[in-house]
This record gives sequence, structure tokens and C-alpha cells, in this order.
Amino acid sequence: MTDFFKDIPPIRFEGTESDTEFAFRHYDPSETLGCKTMAEHLRFSVAYWHSFAWEGGDPFGGQTFERPWFGDTMDAAKMKADAAFEMFRILGQPFFCFHDVDVRPEGETFAESLSNLEEITDYLGQKMDETGTRLLWGTANMFTHRRWMSGAATNPDPDVYAYAAATVKSCMDATKKLGGANYVLWGGREGYETLLNTDLKREREQAGRFLNAVVDYKKKIGFEGAILLEPKPQEPSKHQYDYDVATVYGFLKEFGLENEVQMNIEQGHAILAGHSFEHELAMAAAFGILGSIDMNRNDYQSGWDTDQFPNNVPEVALAYYEVLRAGGFVSGGTNFDAKLRRQSLDAEDLILAHVGGMDTCARGFKAAWAMLEDGSLEEARVARYAGYDSSDVLGQDLGTLYERVLEENINPSPRSGRQERLENLVNRFV
Amino acid sequence: MTDFFKDIPPIRFEGTESDTEFAFRHYDPSETLGCKTMAEHLRFSVAYWHSFAWEGGDPFGGQTFERPWFGDTMDAAKMKADAAFEMFRILGQPFFCFHDVDVRPEGETFAESLSNLEEITDYLGQKMDETGTRLLWGTANMFTHRRWMSGAATNPDPDVYAYAAATVKSCMDATKKLGGANYVLWGGREGYETLLNTDLKREREQAGRFLNAVVDYKKKIGFEGAILLEPKPQEPSKHQYDYDVATVYGFLKEFGLENEVQMNIEQGHAILAGHSFEHELAMAAAFGILGSIDMNRNDYQSGWDTDQFPNNVPEVALAYYEVLRAGGFVSGGTNFDAKLRRQSLDAEDLILAHVGGMDTCARGFKAAWAMLEDGSLEEARVARYAGYDSSDVLGQDLGTLYERVLEENINPSPRSGRQERLENLVNRFV
Amino acid sequence: MTDFFKDIPPIRFEGTESDTEFAFRHYDPSETLGCKTMAEHLRFSVAYWHSFAWEGGDPFGGQTFERPWFGDTMDAAKMKADAAFEMFRILGQPFFCFHDVDVRPEGETFAESLSNLEEITDYLGQKMDETGTRLLWGTANMFTHRRWMSGAATNPDPDVYAYAAATVKSCMDATKKLGGANYVLWGGREGYETLLNTDLKREREQAGRFLNAVVDYKKKIGFEGAILLEPKPQEPSKHQYDYDVATVYGFLKEFGLENEVQMNIEQGHAILAGHSFEHELAMAAAFGILGSIDMNRNDYQSGWDTDQFPNNVPEVALAYYEVLRAGGFVSGGTNFDAKLRRQSLDAEDLILAHVGGMDTCARGFKAAWAMLEDGSLEEARVARYAGYDSSDVLGQDLGTLYERVLEENINPSPRSGRQERLENLVNRFV
Amino acid sequence: MTDFFKDIPPIRFEGTESDTEFAFRHYDPSETLGCKTMAEHLRFSVAYWHSFAWEGGDPFGGQTFERPWFGDTMDAAKMKADAAFEMFRILGQPFFCFHDVDVRPEGETFAESLSNLEEITDYLGQKMDETGTRLLWGTANMFTHRRWMSGAATNPDPDVYAYAAATVKSCMDATKKLGGANYVLWGGREGYETLLNTDLKREREQAGRFLNAVVDYKKKIGFEGAILLEPKPQEPSKHQYDYDVATVYGFLKEFGLENEVQMNIEQGHAILAGHSFEHELAMAAAFGILGSIDMNRNDYQSGWDTDQFPNNVPEVALAYYEVLRAGGFVSGGTNFDAKLRRQSLDAEDLILAHVGGMDTCARGFKAAWAMLEDGSLEEARVARYAGYDSSDVLGQDLGTLYERVLEENINPSPRSGRQERLENLVNRFV
Repeated sequence: MTDFFKDIPPIRFEGTESDTEFAFRHYDPSETLGCKTMAEHLRFSVAYWHSFAWEGGDPFGGQTFERPWFGDTMDAAKMKADAAFEMFRILGQPFFCFHDVDVRPEGETFAESLSNLEEITDYLGQKMDETGTRLLWGTANMFTHRRWMSGAATNPDPDVYAYAAATVKSCMDATKKLGGANYVLWGGREGYETLLNTDLKREREQAGRFLNAVVDYKKKIGFEGAILLEPKPQEPSKHQYDYDVATVYGFLKEFGLENEVQMNIEQGHAILAGHSFEHELAMAAAFGILGSIDMNRNDYQSGWDTDQFPNNVPEVALAYYEVLRAGGFVSGGTNFDAKLRRQSLDAEDLILAHVGGMDTCARGFKAAWAMLEDGSLEEARVARYAGYDSSDVLGQDLGTLYERVLEENINPSPRSGRQERLENLVNRFV
Repeated sequence: MTDFFKDIPPIRFEGTESDTEFAFRHYDPSETLGCKTMAEHLRFSVAYWHSFAWEGGDPFGGQTFERPWFGDTMDAAKMKADAAFEMFRILGQPFFCFHDVDVRPEGETFAESLSNLEEITDYLGQKMDETGTRLLWGTANMFTHRRWMSGAATNPDPDVYAYAAATVKSCMDATKKLGGANYVLWGGREGYETLLNTDLKREREQAGRFLNAVVDYKKKIGFEGAILLEPKPQEPSKHQYDYDVATVYGFLKEFGLENEVQMNIEQGHAILAGHSFEHELAMAAAFGILGSIDMNRNDYQSGWDTDQFPNNVPEVALAYYEVLRAGGFVSGGTNFDAKLRRQSLDAEDLILAHVGGMDTCARGFKAAWAMLEDGSLEEARVARYAGYDSSDVLGQDLGTLYERVLEENINPSPRSGRQERLENLVNRFV
Repeated sequence: MTDFFKDIPPIRFEGTESDTEFAFRHYDPSETLGCKTMAEHLRFSVAYWHSFAWEGGDPFGGQTFERPWFGDTMDAAKMKADAAFEMFRILGQPFFCFHDVDVRPEGETFAESLSNLEEITDYLGQKMDETGTRLLWGTANMFTHRRWMSGAATNPDPDVYAYAAATVKSCMDATKKLGGANYVLWGGREGYETLLNTDLKREREQAGRFLNAVVDYKKKIGFEGAILLEPKPQEPSKHQYDYDVATVYGFLKEFGLENEVQMNIEQGHAILAGHSFEHELAMAAAFGILGSIDMNRNDYQSGWDTDQFPNNVPEVALAYYEVLRAGGFVSGGTNFDAKLRRQSLDAEDLILAHVGGMDTCARGFKAAWAMLEDGSLEEARVARYAGYDSSDVLGQDLGTLYERVLEENINPSPRSGRQERLENLVNRFV
Repeated sequence: MTDFFKDIPPIRFEGTESDTEFAFRHYDPSETLGCKTMAEHLRFSVAYWHSFAWEGGDPFGGQTFERPWFGDTMDAAKMKADAAFEMFRILGQPFFCFHDVDVRPEGETFAESLSNLEEITDYLGQKMDETGTRLLWGTANMFTHRRWMSGAATNPDPDVYAYAAATVKSCMDATKKLGGANYVLWGGREGYETLLNTDLKREREQAGRFLNAVVDYKKKIGFEGAILLEPKPQEPSKHQYDYDVATVYGFLKEFGLENEVQMNIEQGHAILAGHSFEHELAMAAAFGILGSIDMNRNDYQSGWDTDQFPNNVPEVALAYYEVLRAGGFVSGGTNFDAKLRRQSLDAEDLILAHVGGMDTCARGFKAAWAMLEDGSLEEARVARYAGYDSSDVLGQDLGTLYERVLEENINPSPRSGRQERLENLVNRFV
């Protein structure tokens, strides 16, 4: 046990009239919508890296946070785990997520890193058993260490490819060991800095080969969770191969993986790719590959990944609306891939940032649920395309349609798209 | 004949020492690189719409150009054609491109529009025969008229789908009649303004069905040219389905069209999608779908399509380098999808903008050719990946590689990517 | 009277439980906050141009709207005015705004345009008297006609400068005649397309001279309203001199006008300049030049001015919070410089877009008022800087402070900025 | 002496035909243009921080560079200085620039940091005497250490203000001691993360007070160099007060400093603010505050500061054209505020990146000089505004001009802006 969070009480639902800072106003885990509780719908997860491993640095500044568990030893790693599970107890969220490097010190060799990972996952497993907190997903950090500077699977050096394969195997093993519901791959270095030194086609093929090997290994070990790719257009690389959902879909089709791999979609990455969050969710749903979400907020005026806690309910509502239209989460959930601002130094900040994020999500989710229940939006959508129900145009070739237009003197008359009326309708719920 | 360009002489190659404004300094159509002339390599094309149909408007201003051929009559259309071929004679470029609405007045009915198109394509064909100017590609404008406001193939109204089919058929017929080397589809309205009223999945399926019908029709009529899609991320729509090359590749794979359709890639659209032009070209080459290019320049500080004439030789050189690496143009070419600034009112501006663009392209192309001939860049690229030539990592599964890393204690040592040295190398040629 | 809006009832406040589409849920004009009604606080205004003059075009498409009053005659202008005041009656907002070209047909000569303006302002004045709708501000459109293509006051042709002066005089006269509360200048063409043909310094001096002449004329005719500049970074020009609030402040200081001119700040323009709306408002308040607002919403993923109706309450609340901190509106107000999406064809769309916008603003305003009443945010802000109350560092020179740091061994200890906690606090109110 | 650069020869000018990688092709320091050598015109400077202190990290990755001088001791600082001057000897550039933290280890206290600075500046001074390399400017790093996380002069804690004052004094003393030609202030943390906790007006006043104290101290110690502010819109802060040149000009006017302070303008910062580099230079020249430049290149597709070495000659030429139009550098120069890509690991990369940058600048500068000598661009610009030479419109009030327009029936006729022809003209030189 640490005393980092001492004096901070477990967060309880107190309703909108509460004047306590340390309370949920909107998130009541046991509230029921349909046949699931809010906890079951939202499947909140804390990100180990931002909350416990990140030191507060940015491109122009160093560490601002002072945490008793910072350090490269196994003892520090255990104290970090203690603090993490202390926070999980306070927040009561059902899940967490981690990278290998978040939880264990780097070893001198792969074998030593592996041994550290084994030891710490034993420790984490024990704490999970004690507390009931589960693993939403595990993943490998293949972007921070200098060995990954030119990519992991797409590295021009086959030794790095091998090292990446070994790393992912170890992280998939750890994820399975801890009962993880999914395994995520984010390819921050799988891209390029300059085309001048890059064989784009070759690197994509390496990535395709690698992902097939990951899927094979999943099957081999009987891991039941989903394999999730997380798109991002750039940063740290100038261009990343997993640019956005549509790009990744093409990649999956190219390598025959569209039925094996789903998406972990992050709000901030959507924004950086020039899309709204709901666009990326709707695209993934259309492709049948919507898996899980990284819920954060990206500053619209900043051209990099700001990973802020969500706080805009209307935006969050539109995102959950797409999740619900696609059937809600199965193995996936709502992971707060969000970090404190580096000036938010205190333990209280860390707790309350999550409390605010969870309340924002709960409000948004309930609004989305109500919109879907109400049905007006879906009715309007269906009505707009109703002409196709009694039309055979899609089955006809250009020549036939040409004849029809001439013979019937078709001269289409536009109908209002009613965007503002639909936006007003949404505003009745958010 | 018009006298719009009177007193402007045909543009001749005079070399870099020329002090004549109306001369090529770098583009010598008959200069030979390898077994082709510069004219055969670059395959320059003038865009009918920007040069002859656009009136100089922008979102905050109306017409600035005063052309004697502006008007909605067939006489005006013929005067426009006269002026266009007069300019083609002055520039000597081998190709032009057009949309249906650029060349004919809109009729009251589809039949009347069609009849107008027949008449003007007869007229154009006659002028092409007389002058030798050929058609790089034809296309249908399915974005300007209000009937297209909610999409053409992706419209919620099946009548519009039918009208789009009839329109494309008529334009493919016209393109074939005029011996066009390609047929292009740009889906400016194939997208959405708001997800709230949009059935994304249905619209994509309509688009897939439509494109299949286009390919079928191509085969039916024996059109030998390539079918080209032109990606653009947005504008006029908030989101366009043909966002960028990678997105379109996924679309083609989804609908089984990746061997039937190629890309017409525009510099400005690449920029708006967050990519460099050479990125989009390299992606298309990697997918085997690089067809043709729209050569222009987008202002990097403006968030919309500025369609300026190219003037930055180093950038143009990197684009042609990717074209040449992919084998050069087959049916495609270099279309100036570029417009005068709306303050550039004079006939001289129109001629000299093209002269400057052609010279910029010629300089860039010759630099690209020299870089490829020199071979240093390609040698460096090949050397970077040489480790894979003697490695079997790509054939091994995660478990095997994991064992190897442990047994051989693999600990990869990063090697310099040498980006700046490669950039210096490029600067020897541009 | 037109029958364009027939069957649409006047919009009444019915409260949040209403299930009528044609009702206010949040905006009750007679609701009182402090010593003013909501109508007096918000001072809503309809923009004549977007709602009555704009035809639905965009850079890739033409007219989509079909309005009986479109046309270039005085009769059409009067029918347009009839429709406008019909809408004002339905909405019940207290104000409207217009440009000269919105309300009168362009004449062949300046004299004819002027005469048209006289006639239509007589007509408008009569309708204003009848209905009680007032003029928030008038302005001159010096960007649409081709004469302005290279600028108005900053044009390289002194004849255009003169024409601009005459135009502004006529519009200031019209604004005074109609009892306008302010006069606005937006310099869409006061900027450049390329530095290559631009004398930046000279053009700025022309603009400074012109604005001084405007202020002189205001005093001469005894116009009591405020003169407002409206910043925008670009579009239509590549660069506009009134880039953002801070830039305009420098301009006003340069020409001695900082006490004579205030700002009309638009949300969409703030976004395009890389700022949040609240940033621009806070900057103007800091400079003492916050006058009025153009309330709209810019799509965050589109790089041009989208002028959508506001619909995000949390964002609107933060904007009004800055307005209220600055003391609320004096002569200014909330002008909906927002247009329908071009697919929103119907009379109902036009009414309901405004209803939704007014409700969004009312919710946001009430939240802002409550936050300010509550006082917690302001207390936290004051407390953060409290150290300065008992410190004299700002009065000391570098040498003195250097000595103090050495002698007192000052080693500052950072304190949390508490951003997330403050964001949570805001979310209690929105 | 280190052996880090061993085997790398001093870089000599060999001309464009050279096939040596380690040679200048365009920069001949002794070449004369007008009455100055290229060395005197360009005044190249190496940035100590990027080349010697930066370890290769980015937001998602750690150190990639392995330099023998990395470490926090005075011995390491001296070895770093040895390596730096070794590189200066190889490149032969006349100047360098530094922050305090680049050259000395951080102490436990201000006094210890100061003592370290004293010792290392003695060492640097000795090396400068030996080699002839001079100091273009010194500056204080008030953004990396956690004490600055909420600003330096604009910090809510007066102790930080005092510490900032002491720091700047020590750095100005060091700059004077080493004969620096300028002193620079870049306010990376002088801005805000959220308006919610920020008193914008107060912080700006603190900044104004601080800058006045800096100017006073300059006078007190008789420092003859210029005081330069370096604008940047954001990063690391969400908003920085020194957003761009126009914003800073307003700030200087507000605090009466427009005759005391000049601008250090960086290409990458201009791009991030939505401007071209030449725009910012032209603005500063118009205000009479153009001091010095940070020459780098920002990736146009990346939304953060990429600080790449310049390699696009046409862009660089337009920048130097504005510098030359403003009279060329006086105390300022061309500082390479550019860093290697983090994958460029080798000593050779560091040298050759500078060689490429210097050659790019030399080519661009010579093209700019030739354009100005030729005079055609300037003639065209002057001619465009010639109407004002014989016009008195700028001296007349609105009423007088209104009468003139009516009486003379002024109806301005637009003239072509000839942008493309001017761009062609530029392309004759680059």
C-alpha cells in the first residue's frame, strides 16, 4: 500500500445535486439501461501509462510529476502497481490497460525484460484477483526505446522484426495470463519520416506478414479476445501506415485479415486524421470492425495528440450513439487514454480527472441511449432512403438507366436534408 | 476563330538564356530522355473547366473574368471551343480534358443536354482532327447542378442514381467517340454533410455498385482507356468517400475493383488530406493503381482547394520521381487542373500561367530522370533493407522468433536513416 | 406579405418538456437574470445576407435555394424585405443586420445604387417602425463585386479607394437613418493573394487612413453607435490584415484608434485563426475593445468558413462567460452570422435553424450566468495570482531581483494548475 | 579535443560540379555580392541546443543519440564545448547561439547554476578567442525545468517571476561577456493551457513589465546588441502570447517598446501560425522590427515544430528577398534552429545537415540578390500603386470622396494582378 491517495475517499454516485467534488453526479455503475448496467455498457478502463508511468514531459519540458514510484527497479514497479490498484479501488472502474514497459523495468537483455514482465504480471494478477479489476487489453510498447526508432515490424533491420515478434508474443502471453479481453497493436513507428529512405511497399508487406503472424499466434494459444489495431495518421512518425479506419480496412483486405482484426478507435487520433470521432466509429461499424474506444479529447487548435480527458457531453453523446447503433461493446470498452495536463500535479487531480471523464461519458451515453430509444433520428434516416425500397436502379446497368431517364424524362427534384432540424433533435437529449 | 489571344505568338523553346516572356525555358517537347521525347513523357493536358468555363468566382465574390464566350448558348459553346483550340495551338500541349458541362449548355431535360453534348463533341472532334490535340480524359460534372447536392451515385433518391448513370454513360460515350485515353470519376458530392442524416454503409454500397456498372459499361463498349478515380478528402462535402489513395484502395478491394480502376491523383487533394503529393503517388504505385496526375499546387496555409499552377521545382521533381519509379505514364498524363488567380484577368495571364507550369514540370521531370539515372538514391534504399535478403524472419511465426531472440540474445543496434544526406543528394539534381 | 412562411406559427417559449418542434425550449425572452431580460442580455440578431440573399452556392456548386424574392429588381428587394420581416415576426428576435448589397439591387452607377439604397431603406424603416425590430448593425459589402477583387481601402487603384469611401459613407448614413446600434467593417479583400505584387506597408497605411476617415465621419454625423472591426485570418484573401483580435489591436495602436474602434468577433473566424472563440473574446476584453459577436459554429475539420448555426452548449457557455466577465453587451449583441446547409431547402429549415441556435445560446448564457453567480471559478483564478498582492517583484529591476534570488535562495515550488478540476466545475453548469 | 568528428575534413567550397559529399557546392564564404562577402551577408550560426544538447527524444520516444559528452557534469559540459568548436572549425560558420542550460549543468540552487555558467562561459570565451567563432545571440531557457511549467514572467507565482528576472540577468551578462551581437527571448511557456485558470490581462501586463525591465537592464550595462523576441503561436503552450509578428507588434506598442525590441523570426513558427515565412519577414519589415532569422523548415503536414534543415531553394529565396528588401542583416543573422531527424545518428549526419542547409541558403540568397538587382519585380510592384502618386484620395474625407464619385461617376475598372507572370519571373532566378 502507498499513501499517495490517502484521504481520498472511494467515489460514490451522489446525483446531480451533490456539492461534493469527490462524487459521481451522472455515473451510477448500477443504473440499468435495457438489460445492462451502466458499468456493463461503458466498460471503463484506466490507462496505466498516462496515469502511472508518464512523468509530465513534453517536447520542450521535462518531468513535472513527482511520484514515489518513479524509478527503474522492480520495487518501484510494485509500488506503482500498488498505487494503481489503490486508484482503481477509489474509482471503481472495472478495467485497466497496460503496455509491457508501463509495468516492468527494462532489462539489459530481452530475457531479463521478459523475466521482469513475468514477475510483475504475477503481482498484477494477484492484485486483480483481490480487487476484481480486470484487464481490458494488453499491448506492447514498440515505440519508446531507440531500437524501434525506424519501426518495429516495418523496420529495415530483420533483427528488429524478430525482436518485435518476440515482444508481441510475450505481451500476448501476459494478456492471456491476466485474462485480458483484447490485445491491441498501435504502430506509432510503423510509418516513415521520409520517403527518400523508405520502401513503402516492402514495409507494408512486412506489416501484413506480421499481423498475420499475430493472428496465427492468437489462435495457437487459444486467446479468445479480439485483436485490435489502433489507427493514427502521424505522430510520432511523419506518416503512419494505420492512418485512419478506412486506410486500415484497405490494409486488412490486402492481407486477408478483415475478419480477424477489429479497431480500437481514439477520439484524438480521429481529429488528427481530419475526421470527427463519430465518423471513425461509423466507418468501422460499416466495415464490421468496430471493437473498442480510446476515450479522450484532442484540442482542436493543437496539431498534436493532446490526450485530454473528455468533457464535452454533446460530442461524447454522438460517439456513443454510433457505438450503440453498432450494437454496443462486446469485448471492447471505454479506455481513458487521457493524461493530466502536466501542470496538474496532485493526487486529487488524477482522481478527479477520471471522475469528470466518467461523468461526461455517462451523461453522453445516457443521451445516446435515449436518442436511440426515441427513434426519431433513425426514422428520419430510414425515410430519407425509402425510395430505394421500391426501386430497382441498383440492379440495372448504365445503358438501361440511360434509356429510362430518356423515356421517363426523369428530372430529380431535390429534397431538404434537414440537417439543422436533426441537430435540434439531438439537442433535446444532450 | 476568336481574337481573344491575338498577338500572342505560339510558344517556342528558347532555352534558359531567353529573355522573352512568351517562351519555354525548360520544356523542349522534342528533347529526348531515354526512348521518349519530353512531350511523350509528360503528356501535358489543359483543363477545359478552369481555363474556359470558370468565371473567377469564389465563396465571397462573383465573376471577375470577362470572356466573349461566356453564355448558355450553343454559339457561345462553339466560340469557347474556338478559343480553347486557339490556346492549344499556342501552347502546343498534346492533350486536353473536359466535363460535359464545360463544353455544352445545360438543357431543360436530359435529352436536350444530351443533344447539346452530341453537337458540341462533333465540333470538338472536328477541331481535334484539324489540330492533332487529343483527349487525355473525359468526365461528368455531377456536383454543380442542384440535383447533385446530396450526391450522385450515393444520393438518397434513386432517381438521382438513375440520372447519374445516364450522365456517366453519355460522358463515357463522348470520351470514346473523341478517342479519350482515360475516363475519370471525381466524387465531390459522394460523401456527407452530417452523419445524422446519412446511411454511410448504404451510400458506400451504392457507390460500389455504381462503379461496377461503370466498369461493365467500359467493357461493353470496348473503351480501351483506363477508368480513374480521383481522391479528395473534403470540399465540397464535409467528408468524401474517396478521401485519399489508401481509402480508395480499401473501397476498390471491398467491391472487387482493384484490378479495374486506377487513380488520378491531384497535388492539392493530397495536401488537403494531410499528405505530400509524392506520398499519394508512392501509395498508388505500391497498390499498382497509379494512373494519371492532376498537377497543381495548393497553398499550404489555406484550408481549401486553391488549384494554383505549379511553380516549385523541387516539389515537382519528387512527384515525377515517384511517377518514374512506377514506370512513367501509360494512359495517364500531366493535367493542369490549375486555375488562374481570379485577379489575373488577361489572355496573357492564361497563356503564361501554363507556360510557367510546363517549364516547372519539365525542370522537375528532368531532375527526377537524372536522379533515377544516377541511381544513388535507389542504391541507398535497397541497401537499407538488405538484411532481409539473407534473413528468413518473415517466414517464421512469433514463437520461433521469440526463441531465436532468446537463444541468440538478439539486441538490435540502430543504424542512421541518413535523411539529411539523402535530401542533400536530391538537391544536387533540382 | 409573402406566403413563404405560411403555416409556420410564431415561436413561443414552451419549456424543456415541450414536444413541439416549433417552440423555444430554453429561450424565454422575458426571463430575467439580474436586472435584464434574456432578450436584453442576448440581443439576438438575424443576418439578412445568409437568410435572404444567399442562394446556396459553394465553390463546386450553384444555387440550391428557390426563393420567390430572388432577382435584381426593386420589386424583388421589397418582397425579400417582406419575407425577412415575416421571419422576424415569427422568431421575435429584437435585431437584424445587413450589407447594402443584401437589401438593394446593384445599379449601373454608384448614383443608381445609392438611389436604390435610399428607396429600400425607406421601406425597411417603415417595416421596422411597424414591427419594432431594430438594426444591430449595418455594413458595406466591399468584397463581392469584381471592383473589389484587389481590395477596397487597400486597393492599388485610388479610384477604388474613393469608391470604397463613398460606399461606406452611404452605408453609415443608412445605418444612422435606421437607428443602427453599431457599424461594422469586415475586410475580406483587405489583404493579399501574393506578396509578389503587394506593398504591405503601403496597404496597411491606406487601411489606417481609411479607418480614421470612418471614425471622423462617425463623429461628424453624430452617429452614436460603435464602429466595429471584424477580424478574420484569410478567406477570401490568402492573408487578411485583420487576422485576429491581437493583430487588429496592433493595427489600432499603430493608427491611434484603440479608443475609437471595437471588435465584432466571430466564432468561425476565431477557429480559422487557430484560436478558440473564448480566446478571442478574452483578448478583446483584455484590450478593452470587445463590442459584439457573430455567433456561429465552424466545422473543426473543414479549413474554410462554414458558418453553421451554433449547437454545442458547453462551447457557447464558455463564450458567454467571457462576454459576461467583460460586463455583457453594451451596443453589441448576438448576431447569427450563420447559414443553412445548402441542402436545407425549406422555409421550415430556415426558421428552425434559428430556433435551435437561439435555444443553444440561451442555455449557454444561463450556464455562464450561473457560473459567474456561483463565483467558484473566479475565486480560483484570483487565488492563483494572490502571491502578487503581497509582492513587489513587478516594481523591481533585474539586478534587484537577481540579488534577492541569491540572498533568499529562492527556489520556486510549482503548484497544480488544477485544469481538470476547473473543467469539472464548468460541467456542473452546462 | 574529442574524436567525435575525426576523419571529417573541413568543408571547402568546391562548386556545383564537385562530387564530394563533404564540400560546399554553393556557399563560398568569400564570394562577394555588392560590398559584402557571402559570409558577411548570411552570418550563419549553429544552434548549440539542437546539435549538442538534444538527445533525440520525441513525445513517444526517448534518447536515440549517443554522444560522449552527454551528462550533467562540468567535465561533460567542457567536452560538449570541445565537440561544438570542433564542428565550428569544420563548417567555418562565423557564429553560434546558446541557452544557459545548453552549456552548463543545472545546479542545486540558482547560485550553483550561476557559478557553473560563469565557469563554462570562461571556457567558451577562451575557445572563441582561439577560433574566431562569435556569438550571434545568447538566451535563457525558461521552459524546460518544471519551475517554468506555468510560465516565467507570466507565472502566477511571484517567486518564479523573480527567478526569471535573475536568470535573464545572468544570461544577458553572459551574452555581453562573450560579445554577443543580440539577446533573444522566446516565451514558450508565456501563454496558457486553459483560460479557466488564467488571468490573461494580468499575465500580459507581467510580460510587458518584464520586457521593460530587460530593456532597462540592457541600457544599464551598455549592451550594444539588439533585444529580440521570437514569436510562436503555440507548442509547448496551448496559446503563446507572442503568437506571430503582428501580435507581438501590438504587444510592443501596448508597452511602449516598439523602438526597443526587434523580432527573431523562425520559419517553422511562421508555418505553425498559418503564415508563410516571407509573410512574417515582410510584416516585421513593415513595422521596422526585423532583426534576425531562425532558418529551418517545418513539415507542412505535421502540426508541430519539426525544425528540419532547410532544403527548398525557391522558398528560401523568397525569404531572403524580404530580408534584402529590408536592407539585409545588421546585428542579426541566419541561425540554423534546426535539428537532425532522430534517426540520423552519426557525426557525418550532423555535419552534412549543416552543409546542405548552408548550400540551400547560399543558393536562395544569391537568387534573391539577383532578383533585386534585376529590379523587374520591384518595378512591377511600384507600377501597380502608381495611381496614388497623382491622387489625393488619401487626404480626403468620406464626404468629399462621396461627392467625387458621384460627380465624376467613378466606376473603377479592375486590372490584372499578374500573379502567375510574377511567379514565372521568380522562377528565372531560383
